[in-house]
Amino acid sequence: MPRFFVQPEFVYEQKISIRGGDSRHITNVLRLGRGDVINVFDGTGKEYVVLIERASASTVEGRIITEKTIEVESLVEITLFQGLPKAKKMDLIVEKCTELGINKIVPIRTARTIPETDADYTGTSQMKVRLSRWNKIARESSKQSGRVKIPEVCDLIPFSHAINEKTDLSLIPFEGEREQGIKKTLKRCPVASYPCRVGIFIGPEGGWTKEEIGQARHNGIIPVSLGLRILRTETAAMIACALVLYELEPIIKSKIPGVSDN
Amino acid sequence: MPRFFVQPEFVYEQKISIRGGDSRHITNVLRLGRGDVINVFDGTGKEYVVLIERASASTVEGRIITEKTIEVESLVEITLFQGLPKAKKMDLIVEKCTELGINKIVPIRTARTIPETDADYTGTSQMKVRLSRWNKIARESSKQSGRVKIPEVCDLIPFSHAINEKTDLSLIPFEGEREQGIKKTLKRCPVASYPCRVGIFIGPEGGWTKEEIGQARHNGIIPVSLGLRILRTETAAMIACALVLYELEPIIKSKIPGVSDN
Repeated sequence: MPRFFVQPEFVYEQKISIRGGDSRHITNVLRLGRGDVINVFDGTGKEYVVLIERASASTVEGRIITEKTIEVESLVEITLFQGLPKAKKMDLIVEKCTELGINKIVPIRTARTIPETDADYTGTSQMKVRLSRWNKIARESSKQSGRVKIPEVCDLIPFSHAINEKTDLSLIPFEGEREQGIKKTLKRCPVASYPCRVGIFIGPEGGWTKEEIGQARHNGIIPVSLGLRILRTETAAMIACALVLYELEPIIKSKIPGVSDN
Repeated sequence: MPRFFVQPEFVYEQKISIRGGDSRHITNVLRLGRGDVINVFDGTGKEYVVLIERASASTVEGRIITEKTIEVESLVEITLFQGLPKAKKMDLIVEKCTELGINKIVPIRTARTIPETDADYTGTSQMKVRLSRWNKIARESSKQSGRVKIPEVCDLIPFSHAINEKTDLSLIPFEGEREQGIKKTLKRCPVASYPCRVGIFIGPEGGWTKEEIGQARHNGIIPVSLGLRILRTETAAMIACALVLYELEPIIKSKIPGVSDN
């Protein structure tokens, strides 16, 4: 069945209107008209079967017969353990990683996090205000990106606790790692089951200490390089998240019967 | 030869100092000391051959014998054609794409760019002020990420001119594209020579019109999907840039004799 994209604002009260090049294509090329049926999607995860009611080269209008929601949530459930950066950077990390499809964000205190006022103490009122703002950013960003799930931004925990969290794969990007690129590591990752839980550890502005890398490695967390150019902490968070989803989502989808991927 | 990472601040006046776990490793495990030679890199693209002058479990100090600069610039030369977004978003795009390794950024006027004051007119004083700020951001971001090259942010041009620029591959992420994922497109890309010039076309906040997608396609620019979740314009710019480098850089490096990649 022919399949067309419409902006969400052209879907209203069970009706759909298609204009421009697509309406010409429907009427002049496909020679469809009143009574014919087409598929329409709106880019927010909604897909419709539409019965054409009126058709001209400039506008095709139709009625929605059935509607289904495409699964936009990832089967790769990423938890970002983020060395607490300065306030604005964390806002950006929460917004962008939510758009990309992250599952959970856990701010962590590391050897080089900078204590700002009392923000490094879990449960302080200042930290509560921040958490509330970050969770609000996550809600708004989730909605904007057409997601169903709202990632949780959790309370600050120390690095030493974070490295004990159970995952199927955990990575710690580190500028001192040169042998192991993230690509090779992800290509070697045995994705046995789904959902696949992946942990990403990102250092604060000052990076990781060698001791932290040693502790992480001891707990099975793999140090990786994100490339030759140095990325700021917030950039590293977004890019690591995007690359993990890029590599692992198609692998997982290929394991699920009846699900295809582009 | 053993190879160690030091933070750039531990490199000064042709001397290098190594502390913590690595100094213990050098003295106790490798049993190296005065007169031995090691390799050291600092994560900014500099690599050193170092003659150890003093060594204890807590500190190893040495003198730089030779220094070389690793090529951090990419052989994938990306030009981002960015539908002009609101001011702050463009600042973020310039900063982040520079960190990632972009070659050039060209703001473009499209059907849905929002004219803010007179910013949509090439050559106006307001536009000159902006260009000057964006180029300053590019300079600072380039330095911070250890790059040698400073990407140029060019004057605003119309979409109709941009699509005529010559590249080896051009992509136009579009939320209405569902059949063609960016991954499949990049995997199919025949990277015949280097440097490889890639164009990325990113729509402004309101996205592309169908007519623009048609014109782009007519000029050989390939519409691709960046995934099921909707990305804001600035996020799409960064992620498309990161994914192109991630896929194509190793392919190109593999074609150059004597260059390995992780």
